[in-house]
Amino acid sequence: MTERIREFLRHRREDGPCLVVDLDVVRDNYAKFARALPDTRVFYAVKANPAPELLAMLAQLGSCFDTASVVEIELALAAGATPDRISFGNTIKKERDIVRALEYGVRLFAVDCEAEVDKIARATALVGAEGVKVFCRILCDGAGAEWPLSRKFGCEPEMAVEVLEHAHRAGLEAYGVSFHVGSQQGNVGAWDQALASSSAIFQTLAERGIVLSMVNLGGGFPTRYLKDIPAVEAYGQSIFEALSRHFGNRIPETIIEPGRGMVGNAGMIEAEVVLVSKKSRAEGETRWVYLDIGKFGGLAETMDESIRYAIRTDRDGDEMEPCVLAGPTCDSADVLYEKTPYPLPVSLAIGDKVLIEGTGAYTTTYAAVAFNGFPPLKSYVI
Amino acid sequence: MTERIREFLRHRREDGPCLVVDLDVVRDNYAKFARALPDTRVFYAVKANPAPELLAMLAQLGSCFDTASVVEIELALAAGATPDRISFGNTIKKERDIVRALEYGVRLFAVDCEAEVDKIARATALVGAEGVKVFCRILCDGAGAEWPLSRKFGCEPEMAVEVLEHAHRAGLEAYGVSFHVGSQQGNVGAWDQALASSSAIFQTLAERGIVLSMVNLGGGFPTRYLKDIPAVEAYGQSIFEALSRHFGNRIPETIIEPGRGMVGNAGMIEAEVVLVSKKSRAEGETRWVYLDIGKFGGLAETMDESIRYAIRTDRDGDEMEPCVLAGPTCDSADVLYEKTPYPLPVSLAIGDKVLIEGTGAYTTTYAAVAFNGFPPLKSYVI
Repeated sequence: MTERIREFLRHRREDGPCLVVDLDVVRDNYAKFARALPDTRVFYAVKANPAPELLAMLAQLGSCFDTASVVEIELALAAGATPDRISFGNTIKKERDIVRALEYGVRLFAVDCEAEVDKIARATALVGAEGVKVFCRILCDGAGAEWPLSRKFGCEPEMAVEVLEHAHRAGLEAYGVSFHVGSQQGNVGAWDQALASSSAIFQTLAERGIVLSMVNLGGGFPTRYLKDIPAVEAYGQSIFEALSRHFGNRIPETIIEPGRGMVGNAGMIEAEVVLVSKKSRAEGETRWVYLDIGKFGGLAETMDESIRYAIRTDRDGDEMEPCVLAGPTCDSADVLYEKTPYPLPVSLAIGDKVLIEGTGAYTTTYAAVAFNGFPPLKSYVI
Repeated sequence: MTERIREFLRHRREDGPCLVVDLDVVRDNYAKFARALPDTRVFYAVKANPAPELLAMLAQLGSCFDTASVVEIELALAAGATPDRISFGNTIKKERDIVRALEYGVRLFAVDCEAEVDKIARATALVGAEGVKVFCRILCDGAGAEWPLSRKFGCEPEMAVEVLEHAHRAGLEAYGVSFHVGSQQGNVGAWDQALASSSAIFQTLAERGIVLSMVNLGGGFPTRYLKDIPAVEAYGQSIFEALSRHFGNRIPETIIEPGRGMVGNAGMIEAEVVLVSKKSRAEGETRWVYLDIGKFGGLAETMDESIRYAIRTDRDGDEMEPCVLAGPTCDSADVLYEKTPYPLPVSLAIGDKVLIEGTGAYTTTYAAVAFNGFPPLKSYVI
């Protein structure tokens, strides 16, 4: 909670829940990443929060951008990024979207199978593009991460060798390897195993005459919610050691793709208590607290109670009691914390404001377009 | 899949996934509800699909509307419904939204606790409204339902007696009882237990001089996905029998709130296969099929693989194989069916169209506003 956000909210007159993002915090986060990993280029994961003011500031600071779609590429370009600073990092792309990206000048693409390489090769031929680079994403087990990581992206390392060889034969530059250690990764050593696999891929391909250049270290850098998290410096140190361990004195070019780690702690949601009630008069009956924001209004990451946000109220000195916390829609799945009830002040009342911290990332864009008629989450970047 | 939808899609030129809703099917569904429950008023649950053309047709057919917010009330009014045909059915309402609803002429409100009654009483006094009716929602265990039903809405029946008495004392009309047997309810007898509780509440309050008038039977009427479902007539028959059993010859006024049952089978989503791949060359490795629509683009009800849609392709005669089915975003949680892989043709290829049936309800409005830069689900009502 920054003084600037406090001041902004004091003067806000509009109704309804909102997110406020403080650019000073983002600037500070960018500087921390740059200091902690001085030889690594930062590709901000636009999907975490694509607010134009945020992208413009990051572009000015020298950030590159990891994008998931043509719309995100257009946002990065509009923010002032040149196409050589944009990666089309989604492994699942329509061929016509690859064509559009190439036409915009984007030359860096993620793949995880030969079919995706073929799309890029065909699109490259169609556009007549040159210097098109692909990196292959490998699977990573994600142990230590708080947001579920499935096998959705990436392939087994042995297959990555073939995919990159296929790209090379198709006239693309087999540029490197990427992986993702899992979102909200609390273990600073989580990069080690994937870097060992990456190094093996580099070596196997070198023996076949294909020299890779880059390792994309992905995201996973956490935001502080309720539990303390390691400092960015600790991640930088651990990653550098793992790079040295596995690549010796031939450390490749590296990039990182922070999203949550860049904007999570820069934002705060202000919401309102709509109702406080109990289901019966029985002794020990749990209180339900209903906010005007829920799973479908921006707090999708409470799915399976994965992310547990810090919630502040004006009554935090008072006696606390575990409550079920729920959203405002007529959907019984719109409950934030029930399996592990959330401690809130007994004195919390209808109409009170609550502040949900660490909500700068993965909130506004997850909001449903109009579920139950509720508008998407309002956002202010200050 | 109706001939009208097939014809529409044949001529569609725009890109991207879309939902097409056939109004003829909705008209037919409305007629079936009216026939199956001839003495029951239909309050269409606007949240299931608030498309203006759909609401306008239902208004013309004589339907009433169950709304979750002021925006939905405005949609119903704009569709031609008079305020006496609108219920503000959300038990979680801001007091200022109750004021606005009263100003629009709405007089029927859901509650499940005394605090909500107090809001309505204060708002009624402020507006100077008369004839304001409240019904109290009671908890129902939801056994037999496919979409998770939590304890989010409703109170224990014993408390409902107090809540309605409180409303009566506050000068509101204690109008009745409501419950919800759980969405996609496959058991036609699911209403029985809640009707027994409702009858007991009627009786207890009658002994205290308060005469209730109405039982709101809620929604829960299913749409056919992969499994067969009972006919609407069977629900009507079973509900009528339960009403007779518990209320004898003093059957109260009743209303139903179908949403899924009214529009689910009227809609179909057309999507595109963006990628088909495997994660390794290992024997028996599962294929992954990625569509251009996923959990955040409108198929939110695949959460925990709750709703299993029927998916049709042009290659359905070919050999089938269980696949993991996933959406297009860079979010590892955006996987539709993985725990129970979905059988799809082995010949299914990148660029193929697939048809996802029974998607008229709870799709467009769940779509994220811009996750990963992807636009919300397009919708056509024909």
